[in-house]
Amino acid sequence: MENNLKNEKNKPIGIFDSGLGGLTAVKAIKSLLPHEDIIYFGDTGRTPYGTKSEKTIISYANQNINFLKSKNVKMIVSACGTVSSHINKLDNPELVTGVIEPSCQAAVKLTKNYKIGVIGTSATIKSGAYTNALNKICPRAKIISQDCPLLASLIENGFIDKSSEILLKTVNTYMKKFIKEKVDTLILGCTHYPIIKDVINDVLGGHVNLINSGEETAKFIKKYLKEKNMLSEKNSLGIYNFFVSDKLNDFSERAKMFLGYDIQNCTQIININEY
Amino acid sequence: MENNLKNEKNKPIGIFDSGLGGLTAVKAIKSLLPHEDIIYFGDTGRTPYGTKSEKTIISYANQNINFLKSKNVKMIVSACGTVSSHINKLDNPELVTGVIEPSCQAAVKLTKNYKIGVIGTSATIKSGAYTNALNKICPRAKIISQDCPLLASLIENGFIDKSSEILLKTVNTYMKKFIKEKVDTLILGCTHYPIIKDVINDVLGGHVNLINSGEETAKFIKKYLKEKNMLSEKNSLGIYNFFVSDKLNDFSERAKMFLGYDIQNCTQIININEY
Repeated sequence: MENNLKNEKNKPIGIFDSGLGGLTAVKAIKSLLPHEDIIYFGDTGRTPYGTKSEKTIISYANQNINFLKSKNVKMIVSACGTVSSHINKLDNPELVTGVIEPSCQAAVKLTKNYKIGVIGTSATIKSGAYTNALNKICPRAKIISQDCPLLASLIENGFIDKSSEILLKTVNTYMKKFIKEKVDTLILGCTHYPIIKDVINDVLGGHVNLINSGEETAKFIKKYLKEKNMLSEKNSLGIYNFFVSDKLNDFSERAKMFLGYDIQNCTQIININEY
Repeated sequence: MENNLKNEKNKPIGIFDSGLGGLTAVKAIKSLLPHEDIIYFGDTGRTPYGTKSEKTIISYANQNINFLKSKNVKMIVSACGTVSSHINKLDNPELVTGVIEPSCQAAVKLTKNYKIGVIGTSATIKSGAYTNALNKICPRAKIISQDCPLLASLIENGFIDKSSEILLKTVNTYMKKFIKEKVDTLILGCTHYPIIKDVINDVLGGHVNLINSGEETAKFIKKYLKEKNMLSEKNSLGIYNFFVSDKLNDFSERAKMFLGYDIQNCTQIININEY
């Protein structure tokens, strides 16, 4: 019996995203929970999700979850802001932890003027999921949201530092509303966005709290596993296995941008339609 | 026997694209060959193709072709610059007409200084397909190419007129090379790009021939069907049926941008993985 529990505890955490953005969450988990094994799936063959319909997003997410279930994981994390915004419509919502709740909790803790901004993909913002979650935790907060359909594309294509005029112009356009409304806290509601947090910080004038949804989700996972007595008991560093539905030639560099190191050799391509 | 030939002639033309950009080709065919029936498939559930791997692009294109074959079409057109760049690697390349050959023929006819520019998705430019085709037709031409990974995203998200500073900045960045090299002809190697041809024209100074791959492909189809004695003999206007793998709420507006009219009511969603 004791052995069984130990086996359960030492199972990997399953994480999925529409692509490689979710690796920013893996990076945060690696730093906070270094002994946990991780199985990651990135749906690079069908990315992005944020410009697709609700029905398609849900159908893709269900397949991703089925894949992770087949890998015998102890919990499933949607590191995708878009999927997290539609979590209640999944086949088994009770099995999946998203990025919204943790990010909203962090934002409400930090705000002083109760003006909270949210950025995300079109599908995320349209779902109203962040606004609903924030209003539930803190009814007096004023939520200002902005869909940023270009940001993930820019980041994926390497437009990530402030020397890029296109990136600066785009961030300036998307941040106008938040500057006008004087938000003091901004949720980066897509796991791609932490990559350009310095640029966003500069454009906002350096005094706005930026909520990294990957980091907040990592904190939430730690708390959750601790409460359930399900933290890994391994002493060695966690083993990571990465799966994707497509692999570009520059996969090493792209993954490195989000995760900080090369995962080319521990990444397999799978046919997600089989799940 | 005569009836059989007539039936063959009156079969629809099959057209596919990674999404809705190929509708710019449908628009051109409608104007040039108004009596032809058309079956269109847009892979909106997996769009874009231009940022995916060669293997994935080919596998998706083969499914799209199988779908059109199941619809009993008389010819299959890839209205997708990315797929057209990989046509020789398809299961049945002999069945598919792409946009590259017609565009290159038109460019070579128009150029005076033999400096021809090409813009396309990352996968298109990386394949070298336009450069190879141009060099084959006209070995003395100097080909300057530029991948424009952001343009299709911008257009899909409605950044299409010159009042958009982000669009202007992006087009300016991508056009630098062509201005410096003084190209006199530029192939718009992605069926999205004709939507912003006025912006491109302005940035280039108004004196560069812009090749619309959809229009050139429509001309090629007319010539091809005429030569094969396969033009439709119908007197009525062609019947159009549209199929997509995902349908966003704003499908009407998006399709209208490329095609010029609303096709909401004659568009069905299919599961392309069944083909």
